[in-house]
Amino acid sequence: MTIRVGVLGSGGKVGQAVSDAVRAAADTELVAEVDKDDALSTFVDSGTEVVVDFTHPDVVMDNLQYLISQGIHAVVGTTGFDDARLDTVRSWLADSPETGVLIAPNFAIGAVLSMKFAQQAARFFDSVEVIELHHPNKADAPSGTAYRTAALIAEARKDAGVGRSPDATTTELDGARGADVDGVRVHSVRLAGLVAHQEVLLGTQGETLTIRHDSIDRTSFTPGVLLGVRAIASRPGLTVGIEPLMDL
Amino acid sequence: MTIRVGVLGSGGKVGQAVSDAVRAAADTELVAEVDKDDALSTFVDSGTEVVVDFTHPDVVMDNLQYLISQGIHAVVGTTGFDDARLDTVRSWLADSPETGVLIAPNFAIGAVLSMKFAQQAARFFDSVEVIELHHPNKADAPSGTAYRTAALIAEARKDAGVGRSPDATTTELDGARGADVDGVRVHSVRLAGLVAHQEVLLGTQGETLTIRHDSIDRTSFTPGVLLGVRAIASRPGLTVGIEPLMDL
Amino acid sequence: MTIRVGVLGSGGKVGQAVSDAVRAAADTELVAEVDKDDALSTFVDSGTEVVVDFTHPDVVMDNLQYLISQGIHAVVGTTGFDDARLDTVRSWLADSPETGVLIAPNFAIGAVLSMKFAQQAARFFDSVEVIELHHPNKADAPSGTAYRTAALIAEARKDAGVGRSPDATTTELDGARGADVDGVRVHSVRLAGLVAHQEVLLGTQGETLTIRHDSIDRTSFTPGVLLGVRAIASRPGLTVGIEPLMDL
Amino acid sequence: MTIRVGVLGSGGKVGQAVSDAVRAAADTELVAEVDKDDALSTFVDSGTEVVVDFTHPDVVMDNLQYLISQGIHAVVGTTGFDDARLDTVRSWLADSPETGVLIAPNFAIGAVLSMKFAQQAARFFDSVEVIELHHPNKADAPSGTAYRTAALIAEARKDAGVGRSPDATTTELDGARGADVDGVRVHSVRLAGLVAHQEVLLGTQGETLTIRHDSIDRTSFTPGVLLGVRAIASRPGLTVGIEPLMDL
Repeated sequence: MTIRVGVLGSGGKVGQAVSDAVRAAADTELVAEVDKDDALSTFVDSGTEVVVDFTHPDVVMDNLQYLISQGIHAVVGTTGFDDARLDTVRSWLADSPETGVLIAPNFAIGAVLSMKFAQQAARFFDSVEVIELHHPNKADAPSGTAYRTAALIAEARKDAGVGRSPDATTTELDGARGADVDGVRVHSVRLAGLVAHQEVLLGTQGETLTIRHDSIDRTSFTPGVLLGVRAIASRPGLTVGIEPLMDL
Repeated sequence: MTIRVGVLGSGGKVGQAVSDAVRAAADTELVAEVDKDDALSTFVDSGTEVVVDFTHPDVVMDNLQYLISQGIHAVVGTTGFDDARLDTVRSWLADSPETGVLIAPNFAIGAVLSMKFAQQAARFFDSVEVIELHHPNKADAPSGTAYRTAALIAEARKDAGVGRSPDATTTELDGARGADVDGVRVHSVRLAGLVAHQEVLLGTQGETLTIRHDSIDRTSFTPGVLLGVRAIASRPGLTVGIEPLMDL
Repeated sequence: MTIRVGVLGSGGKVGQAVSDAVRAAADTELVAEVDKDDALSTFVDSGTEVVVDFTHPDVVMDNLQYLISQGIHAVVGTTGFDDARLDTVRSWLADSPETGVLIAPNFAIGAVLSMKFAQQAARFFDSVEVIELHHPNKADAPSGTAYRTAALIAEARKDAGVGRSPDATTTELDGARGADVDGVRVHSVRLAGLVAHQEVLLGTQGETLTIRHDSIDRTSFTPGVLLGVRAIASRPGLTVGIEPLMDL
Repeated sequence: MTIRVGVLGSGGKVGQAVSDAVRAAADTELVAEVDKDDALSTFVDSGTEVVVDFTHPDVVMDNLQYLISQGIHAVVGTTGFDDARLDTVRSWLADSPETGVLIAPNFAIGAVLSMKFAQQAARFFDSVEVIELHHPNKADAPSGTAYRTAALIAEARKDAGVGRSPDATTTELDGARGADVDGVRVHSVRLAGLVAHQEVLLGTQGETLTIRHDSIDRTSFTPGVLLGVRAIASRPGLTVGIEPLMDL
């Protein structure tokens, strides 16, 4: 049996990519596409089981209140969720105990896995550094993902009582050794021809482990969305991030 | 307080590397070195808490019987353990319930982690392939580690109901697509200047995840040995492989 | 002063990418776009100096005969040029001694450079192997570029009197060591999430050199086209491939 | 016929590695080993054709004066040659017009090639950055080789009229974007388990070219020394660096 899926924000590029992915998968069926001028009741009328919402912070809370009230599960990639918003969603879900909502800042499975693996491996190595590589139009350095990866690594090492990576540098040309995020060095490369890439390098005596993630396409989030669509019906309540769905 | 460590097989290159590592670590102390003509009682006399055994299949069982009878923990890198030998060790340990023995085929932390991560990630990607790269004096292709990694990947995908990696190849120059290990393609590079390296490549729409392990030194096993030395006292009974000690 | 450029085959995806690139560059100006129903005289009327032709083997010869007769330079990416066709173009150019024509099978600068560098480096290393990695919809393995790269490497080594790469493999799972192209091993990876990538690995005692080319976008040929547009006016006669324009 | 080779500084680690390499090669023969207490006349007595000198700045000039006066070719890896010293060597060679001397700061063939290729490719790409990765005991960041590579890249781009790599960074955590060497960004990674590695990344629309050099062994200079030994007899006068011997 297939899962009956609806798409909210179906007119945008992201929404279209979601619709394409839902259509292409063998176990999901696209039953409703709703854009900003369409009625949310379309989902009820079409018997939608799971709605994917890539819309806007201004409208996502109204969307969720409606969907939860109708017992329709939701997979949400819209941004702008702070603790207050998450608490509101939890309170709505308390009144609809069989409904599941997934809110995730990052649906790229490879990104989530590489962050997780970096965190797990961090305490076993003397040294850890992060290199992130992006297209030259990016405004911030390091990337948000690299910053967060480094912070998670630093936390894992601190929890395990592992000290700073050794570094005998005494003469440094300003900036050569990268940025320092909680004691973890992060290097940001900006290069034409790249999209979004990250390497975590871990080293100890005689061996190194490298975890590299390459994302070259705006559609790299769709496998993660489908993962959420498949899992959310059997996971009532609020889930933040796709990692809990991955049983790692 | 430091852990009092003894080394069995102290005359060999591997034994010496272990002795060096034990001496260099802040929390371990080298209290006894025993080679083939020395008495095992040296360990008792010196108050050894953990013995590291890199000796020979011909003598390792006698070593273990003695150490277990004296309540001395053991970390064993000697090869040749089949199920029958493991059962024998377990029966000895049953009579010494506070003693711990670790027997591991591979102490390289990076190798163990990369195999584990590959196995965890395998079911989330459409495609997986393995490339291993070694010095040109290696006799077997693929390497044992690559073969085992591919088999674990294949098993993880089968358990999750994931099909074969897609492949539209219709015209192939013989061997181009590598060896087939349970449906996972494995490529073996042999190159002067390399030592022992492995990449697991996982790909899905628009993104790839690469897990690479480089081992360039025969001493890359010592951090794993120290990990075993630190953990084994609080882990009575038999432990096979260092992974259970890593709390992944 | 800018170069006045016309595009032939302006209706296709490739033609549009060329038009975009010509418009975007500071030193080129798009003065004519001609598709299959338009008259070639448009180029003369608009004062076009260089025409870029990405059309079809059926029409490209007529295009070239006209352009050469009018003294308009041409940069050609259309396929299907054999020796007979090249000779015909040369004979037309003999009557128009100031006109230049560039016909190139590959405009990706990175691909051309990596092939050249592999060829230059090949004789200095004991070992050379090639890994090419592509999306899983590719029908042939190895890729044409990898095959040609390996053949050029083999030729360079033969010319320098360098023997085969050392290889002690005695036990091989069928295909593990890749395909054999004139004695050079070539490995073909097919992975979802990839586009077109190639690594040439060269190794000698204690060191390796890796030349890697990644192409992730169909527009990666446009910088090579602009290179041709800028150079062809000062290079009368026929030029085959962009390498001669690069002064390596 | 083999080349009769002598080694100066035969007692040191480097000297021994040279002796081993000369012995192992099919076309060279080790006929004399001279250390600090031995007479230089040993080379004359043994019929040495080429001497390899890895000694000390304090003695190398005396060594060279003697060797040149005897018409013995020299391959020199000893450091400390400034312009004045090179001029002195040239003046001695003027009196012995058939003798050849090679003085090279770096004998690693892969390092020389990667620097050369980076320089050749630099002007064809919008963006270039350098990442160097070394063991954590290194005192300077970036490495001398990375600094020199970046400077050569900057010069090649300047000569070709190519501007700075594009970079839209407006928010930077201090150091994230690396050091600036003549407008080329250089990133220095320090990691346990590494030896000496360098990547030059070049990118333009939709494609990147990466030139990576890995050196994992102190003996990686010996193939370059043998290259010098084979070439120097047919190259009278002073040659600086091995690149001129490589016919690139």
